Amino acid sequence: MQDQLKSEDVQFGIIGLGLIGGSIAKSLSANKFEVFAEDLNQSYFDAAIKDSVIVGSLDEINTSKDLILIICVPVSAHESVFLKHLNLLNEAKLVTDCSSVKNSVLNDLNKNGLKRDNYVFSHPMAGSEKSGYLNSNEKLFEDKTCILMTGEETQESSLRLCESLWQILGSKISLLDLKDHDSLLALTSHLPHLISFSLISTLAELKLESNKIFSGGGLKDFTRIASSDVKMWKDIFSNNSGNISDAIDKFIEKITLFKNYIVEKDSESIENFIENAKNFRDKNL
Amino acid sequence: MQDQLKSEDVQFGIIGLGLIGGSIAKSLSANKFEVFAEDLNQSYFDAAIKDSVIVGSLDEINTSKDLILIICVPVSAHESVFLKHLNLLNEAKLVTDCSSVKNSVLNDLNKNGLKRDNYVFSHPMAGSEKSGYLNSNEKLFEDKTCILMTGEETQESSLRLCESLWQILGSKISLLDLKDHDSLLALTSHLPHLISFSLISTLAELKLESNKIFSGGGLKDFTRIASSDVKMWKDIFSNNSGNISDAIDKFIEKITLFKNYIVEKDSESIENFIENAKNFRDKNL
Repeated sequence: MQDQLKSEDVQFGIIGLGLIGGSIAKSLSANKFEVFAEDLNQSYFDAAIKDSVIVGSLDEINTSKDLILIICVPVSAHESVFLKHLNLLNEAKLVTDCSSVKNSVLNDLNKNGLKRDNYVFSHPMAGSEKSGYLNSNEKLFEDKTCILMTGEETQESSLRLCESLWQILGSKISLLDLKDHDSLLALTSHLPHLISFSLISTLAELKLESNKIFSGGGLKDFTRIASSDVKMWKDIFSNNSGNISDAIDKFIEKITLFKNYIVEKDSESIENFIENAKNFRDKNL
Repeated sequence: MQDQLKSEDVQFGIIGLGLIGGSIAKSLSANKFEVFAEDLNQSYFDAAIKDSVIVGSLDEINTSKDLILIICVPVSAHESVFLKHLNLLNEAKLVTDCSSVKNSVLNDLNKNGLKRDNYVFSHPMAGSEKSGYLNSNEKLFEDKTCILMTGEETQESSLRLCESLWQILGSKISLLDLKDHDSLLALTSHLPHLISFSLISTLAELKLESNKIFSGGGLKDFTRIASSDVKMWKDIFSNNSGNISDAIDKFIEKITLFKNYIVEKDSESIENFIENAKNFRDKNL
């Protein structure tokens, strides 16, 4: 099997056909690859068959052809997937997951003594506040960053395969040290979501006669991520609680500093704080 | 002068040709109204003349025709505008401002004993992270909410005129009690901006080798408002410090509650918190 993936050499197995798994399946099938899949939600599976996005179930995988296995399930569902599909995990040239939290996935692998030389951790930075197969689309990953991380035992060839996979999906690859993932994402992704939920919760207590007052301005965009999938986020928050707690503390420290400038009407410090934030954002985002 | 504004009966004076004033001028001139204006930034004035968006300076206002005066300057600039243009304030059928903070504007009027029966407070909920005349556009207010508030002495006729003005600009009108404005906007507008600046400031301390890790996901949209005009926001924060301090306290209370659920891995409370926020947002925004 070459770095450049060819549809005659490789087939894909996708576990979980939600927003992420469905979008991967749509993009791969649009690129003429054979995709086999499973989802606990039969309607997702049926829809993907009907759309010709997948060709069959995981049971129908051709054992004489190379396999890439992609796991796209909630954080807490990885262990049961691993245990259910031990054979596929062992046979695949590459196994990768798309979880937003990695320590718990690593722990699920370690405590079950699972083969890991074919395992690469993926984190496509391409979420949406819309979830489920019906919202998936083949262009979801285009021009988005996908973070890849290897374990201690990961073979170079599996990493190359994983890079090829995400390149086919249109993503830019960014390599990260596995141990840094959860604390970094706690700040760059989990914290913004948590803030958004908390801000909405603060506003909800206003009990205005007419809530139309909220519309317009930046609030709608700013809180878009508060419409995200409830169970997915409950799962992320529960499985990365230590890092998220640290991230919240760092943020509260900053906002309290800013509050003090405002209470003291310290115009110069307020202006510097805003200006530094604006400059960082305009440069890096 | 009728509720339905006609270009043959009324002319407009606009003080400040930034994003808001420039957009109002563009929309009014597209609706065939004569607009006179001034801006401390000569290049804004020259550009508006060149674009045929305004017909001249405030000195050229036709004294025999009804006048509507619209003030679109930073919060802290209102007093000097009032004192400079006392004559226009007295002559106009309607004077309105577009300030994001109202108590300080009310205070500027009161302490100078200014005529207020023709005065209506406007707050168009149509900001953008882009500022200045060059970013103004005639459609900025379309389908956005404009909050209108009257003072104790405001005549009904001036309120009607102000409603007509914002309807011409395409906005939906929402009436609010003047005394509620600054505490409400501290929560719905000033707090989100402050959070966005604080989040970016928290992330800036990470000093990652490659900041490309930040791209993708919801972070870019979430922090868009952190690119807003620095001096405008310094002015807002400084002039609404008490209400903003209260809003921050309410928010910190909520995020701390949420943090405790996460630290305790209290899945049920985490899920309820997220679900209530999501439901409120989907219903009201």
